[in-house]
Amino acid sequence: MTADIITIGDEILIGQILDTNSQFIASEFTKSGINIRHILSISDSEHAIINSLDLSVGKVDFVILTGGLGPTNDDITKNTLLNYFGGQLITHQKTLELITRFFAKRGKQVTDRNRKQAEVPDSCSVLLNRCGTAPGMIFLREKTILFALPGVPFEMKELLINEILPFIRKKYSLPVILQRTILIEGVPESTLADKLKDWEENLTEFIKVAYLPSPGLLRLRLSISGTNINELNNRLNKEVQYIINLIGENVVFGFDNDSLEQVIGKLLINKGLTLSVAESCTGGNISHLITSVPGSSKYFKGSIVAYSNEIKSNHLNIPKETIEKYGAVSHEVAEYMAKGVMKFANSDCAIATTGIAGPDGGTKEKPVGTVCISVIFEDKIISRKFLFGDNRERNIIKASLSALNMLRNLIKVEQ
Amino acid sequence: MTADIITIGDEILIGQILDTNSQFIASEFTKSGINIRHILSISDSEHAIINSLDLSVGKVDFVILTGGLGPTNDDITKNTLLNYFGGQLITHQKTLELITRFFAKRGKQVTDRNRKQAEVPDSCSVLLNRCGTAPGMIFLREKTILFALPGVPFEMKELLINEILPFIRKKYSLPVILQRTILIEGVPESTLADKLKDWEENLTEFIKVAYLPSPGLLRLRLSISGTNINELNNRLNKEVQYIINLIGENVVFGFDNDSLEQVIGKLLINKGLTLSVAESCTGGNISHLITSVPGSSKYFKGSIVAYSNEIKSNHLNIPKETIEKYGAVSHEVAEYMAKGVMKFANSDCAIATTGIAGPDGGTKEKPVGTVCISVIFEDKIISRKFLFGDNRERNIIKASLSALNMLRNLIKVEQ
Repeated sequence: MTADIITIGDEILIGQILDTNSQFIASEFTKSGINIRHILSISDSEHAIINSLDLSVGKVDFVILTGGLGPTNDDITKNTLLNYFGGQLITHQKTLELITRFFAKRGKQVTDRNRKQAEVPDSCSVLLNRCGTAPGMIFLREKTILFALPGVPFEMKELLINEILPFIRKKYSLPVILQRTILIEGVPESTLADKLKDWEENLTEFIKVAYLPSPGLLRLRLSISGTNINELNNRLNKEVQYIINLIGENVVFGFDNDSLEQVIGKLLINKGLTLSVAESCTGGNISHLITSVPGSSKYFKGSIVAYSNEIKSNHLNIPKETIEKYGAVSHEVAEYMAKGVMKFANSDCAIATTGIAGPDGGTKEKPVGTVCISVIFEDKIISRKFLFGDNRERNIIKASLSALNMLRNLIKVEQ
Repeated sequence: MTADIITIGDEILIGQILDTNSQFIASEFTKSGINIRHILSISDSEHAIINSLDLSVGKVDFVILTGGLGPTNDDITKNTLLNYFGGQLITHQKTLELITRFFAKRGKQVTDRNRKQAEVPDSCSVLLNRCGTAPGMIFLREKTILFALPGVPFEMKELLINEILPFIRKKYSLPVILQRTILIEGVPESTLADKLKDWEENLTEFIKVAYLPSPGLLRLRLSISGTNINELNNRLNKEVQYIINLIGENVVFGFDNDSLEQVIGKLLINKGLTLSVAESCTGGNISHLITSVPGSSKYFKGSIVAYSNEIKSNHLNIPKETIEKYGAVSHEVAEYMAKGVMKFANSDCAIATTGIAGPDGGTKEKPVGTVCISVIFEDKIISRKFLFGDNRERNIIKASLSALNMLRNLIKVEQ
């Protein structure tokens, strides 16, 4: 089955906003086995909307059209669809009730302008919008079903996931497509591709693999399609386990929407452990990631961001001679920092980072991107030296993720 | 003048990547006075490419087409353009030289596959690509000029800014459009709109205003178009100054691409001051923002992330009775934290935050979103209490930006 996506809005064409709706719809339709033929963004003009409909109606099974359903004068999508598909405007009672309740809940009066949002062409079926005031609409012409949705992302998403995809699945037998994303830290894309080469070459065509890299992270997405959900699930589990065995548990920190900081949070809660951090080159980013997780105050005690050597020696008890002898960016200093902050915060485990994020500060022996990381848990301490790249932002992200994964591996092993 | 944008790539249609190229091109063309008629994303297929060209050629002045120019088998844009515009492939010597140098610099041999990238239809003019291996191409049919560019964002941007826009400006007299974006902290969009209502109503049609909100920040973009660049510049400066006078210097922290952390970095360097931070609810985010600026080690000494009350009382010298009496989220504690970290780090000024980021931890007196912030410089201390919203991520961002702007106002005033 095929679909076209049409997004309507002058703000897209002048580059004021990024059209993220199309990516979301394309991803969800692809997962459901529907191929997207094209994505078209057009202005809030009747002429442009009608042209875009002529390009799609009769040529694809589905059209998803978003935007231009709001209450202001520049929102002309509804009247254009009325002209295109025929019929006349009628008030949709259930929508009017929803709108009235929507404003009552916020202690506001319903205006005539709001009330008009409950009017729909009698040539469409209505999709109730439980997150906003503009209802979705379904039109049919030739073989094409057109879904018109509001452009506000969370309203569009709610209608797509809870109304449109179930509607399509009920009407048509779509292939079953399962996806699992393996989350990998610290393995370059090319290295992983080399390791998976033989496996990939022997895959059947029902399994597809996508490499989705971002700084320090690699998401490997497996998609499998067929008809029997149990068989597909078993096969997917088998392939995922094969890959984990091949590349090692230490680099695989989670699946799908997990984040490293969430995974660590759960581990710490399960084991009843507390954490502290001493950050030099990561400058607070590790603490920021950890505290971005709701409930992190249960296991996170705090940090010292020791940007100056003065703080390193005064408050993390690093002997000045150690800094002078080995340099601030060294295993020795990282280990002192980890021990020092563990004592400072009275925590069970700790992370420490020291490095040269760049763009300045590099030397021949320690170029920009050199980072030393130590993680400590009770009397076990592990240290590693990394050489990342020359981009400050990426170096901070990569060092933060490497440090979190080192901690995960240390406390995961220790029972 | 009008233009269409065409982006080519299966990865866009399956929702694997977000098409950010289109927004960039749309924004740059709009700034140059060229109207975008539509943005079309299609698959790597000859049929789809030719259909998309038929929709644009002869109907708009310019077409910008990106993607599908790489060296692998799924990149078919070049051969499709050859079939569409006619001619035959010839080797472009200057491009071949660039490619050879590109690989030599990386210590790699040029392969046949790389060499083929220097082949172009003799029906086009070549745009030299100094950032990658695929050259840009210019074709002409009817009244339409088509620019074909690689899809890699930084290669596309370089060619658009340094080659295509100068090429168009040389050939056509485009209107002069100047933009200035005023960066505002801590003012809700509706409040600003109310303040600017009279001013907006009396604007001439040559000045356009866009409100671009993001958590804690509001960017107000003014665009002015005409023919005389000096007159436009004077007028724009006058309007910008009028707005600053109206809303107050304290909330305007910069212009265009400034960030609050960069502005503060410059202020601290100019005044020869050092900074430290004590973070509770912001959890390291303020330190992270400050250290994201290259060279921040010149003025940033470090931080304490005091997530536990234990760290607050042990290391920031906050009397336990103060925490018990006023609560950890209070002016009193924030002020102790600011004084404590200034002493801890031996810095000239300091920031402290304590609050309830959410989703848990709120009470009737101090609901989720309550944040107390203190900033201190020598013997001057200023404290404010905020009530943000119920979203943890947004609360952390808003508290961080408010804290940075409070510091900016404190040290800006103190000479």
